[in-house]
Amino acid sequence: MKLIRYGQPGNEKTGVEINGTKFDTSGFGQDYDEHFFATDGLIRLKEFINTNKSSLTGIAANERLACPVARPSKIVCVGLNYKDHAAEMQIPLPHEPVVFLKSTSAITGPFDDIIIPKDSVKTDWEVELAIVIGKKASYISAEDAMEHIAGYCLHNDVSEREFQLERGGTWDKGKGCDTFAPLGPYMVTTDEISDIHGLRIWLKLNGQLMQDGNTANLIFNVPYMVSYISRFMTLLPGDVISTGTPAGVGMGYNPPVYLKPGDTVTLGIDGLGESCQRVVAFE
Amino acid sequence: MKLIRYGQPGNEKTGVEINGTKFDTSGFGQDYDEHFFATDGLIRLKEFINTNKSSLTGIAANERLACPVARPSKIVCVGLNYKDHAAEMQIPLPHEPVVFLKSTSAITGPFDDIIIPKDSVKTDWEVELAIVIGKKASYISAEDAMEHIAGYCLHNDVSEREFQLERGGTWDKGKGCDTFAPLGPYMVTTDEISDIHGLRIWLKLNGQLMQDGNTANLIFNVPYMVSYISRFMTLLPGDVISTGTPAGVGMGYNPPVYLKPGDTVTLGIDGLGESCQRVVAFE
Repeated sequence: MKLIRYGQPGNEKTGVEINGTKFDTSGFGQDYDEHFFATDGLIRLKEFINTNKSSLTGIAANERLACPVARPSKIVCVGLNYKDHAAEMQIPLPHEPVVFLKSTSAITGPFDDIIIPKDSVKTDWEVELAIVIGKKASYISAEDAMEHIAGYCLHNDVSEREFQLERGGTWDKGKGCDTFAPLGPYMVTTDEISDIHGLRIWLKLNGQLMQDGNTANLIFNVPYMVSYISRFMTLLPGDVISTGTPAGVGMGYNPPVYLKPGDTVTLGIDGLGESCQRVVAFE
Repeated sequence: MKLIRYGQPGNEKTGVEINGTKFDTSGFGQDYDEHFFATDGLIRLKEFINTNKSSLTGIAANERLACPVARPSKIVCVGLNYKDHAAEMQIPLPHEPVVFLKSTSAITGPFDDIIIPKDSVKTDWEVELAIVIGKKASYISAEDAMEHIAGYCLHNDVSEREFQLERGGTWDKGKGCDTFAPLGPYMVTTDEISDIHGLRIWLKLNGQLMQDGNTANLIFNVPYMVSYISRFMTLLPGDVISTGTPAGVGMGYNPPVYLKPGDTVTLGIDGLGESCQRVVAFE
């Protein structure tokens, strides 16, 4: 299944995408949130769709798409998880996952604008594979990790490099600005991805290919990351883990390239769809 | 007002403490969450209490107290915000606030056990003044900050120093473990605190005074912190900002003192009450 949420911010409704067509599932009566995932929501939703297939209403093409999961308790991010990206950031390869948190108030829809924060001088992009947790996970083994995953979605881990690296504090300062977490277009359930470690992952700036990697090159793979993070904090259903970006971020270019008003960022991962954000100044 | 929440985890009810006696306010019909604070909940709750004063039910003394605010969207922490603590951590004084995030899954009640994580070797304490946001705050000035605050509460910013400082990644890894955020006993509304920058703040380990500071010694004061953080991320109603700890954490002693099963931590801040946590091993 491909789960979507749509409508204006604060009034999102649920839906699904089937064979490229979007259908409303408001009649299911539950948002795609922690409670949904914790109570076998995916199984119940599938039954609801099968039962109501002929009567589902289509969603207008011009509807705004929102983040496909309702506000998670946390977004945990793994940094420097592709060798080529660690090299371009001039930071040594990590011996174990580099973990930081991204404020959930940064979440925005996959086609919403990215707002450059006031005083920002280095707003940058990062295409990433995001994991959505399906089942509470605490001290789980890598062997058991996959059954704690509900699905995957595309994430642009937008980052302000000066805030992140030059303003004291931890990376969080440059990662959680409003609109810095466009998620979606949809959450794909795990059964639709045959090999999560073999997906092309790319990003274009104004039509020009800037990042072009493959999840085969993750330093720490998907089950390892879920297992690892679950040793430091309990992962709740609906929580998001963003798994790091391949080479080609703006900071890695010589001279660096940062986002400016009017730019357009397009990104995608095999099987997880594409998203596109226009860049605007804070007003 | 002093807001409390009580009952077993996942089934908390709301209450208030008036002149040292705890009363149930379930009849108010709303938890102390983002929506409550965003919709003038404090004003409405006060009216509810005035109207129902004579019929409020007392809360049994043996009821578990929970965190006084229902799960916030985020806990933003300011590190190294007392000169004496920065010195004991052997870290230079920050030019601007050091900011990190604490996973909200770490939240626990003020008298619940602190669980030492598996593989932990350096679990430490930090008594802190926590701010609860009352009104959405984005790019607000220090002058306007105080009107965005709903109240204050006592916080033990429990920290695993090896996870925080020696395991790669940002501080978040050692700050968000389960039970690492005992909050409460209550949230005091701002009108009850005449000077937030003149409160004694202390912590005892097994009855021995380890931390004994005063909020007068904060490097960055309360309105400045709210204003500062609001430039990096929108603060939502109910969000918690923890403002840093004075000297006397376990890591600062020579030799260092870390928590072990059987220890008891007691802490308090003038006007914000006291809390007490027993330390247990992960099982």
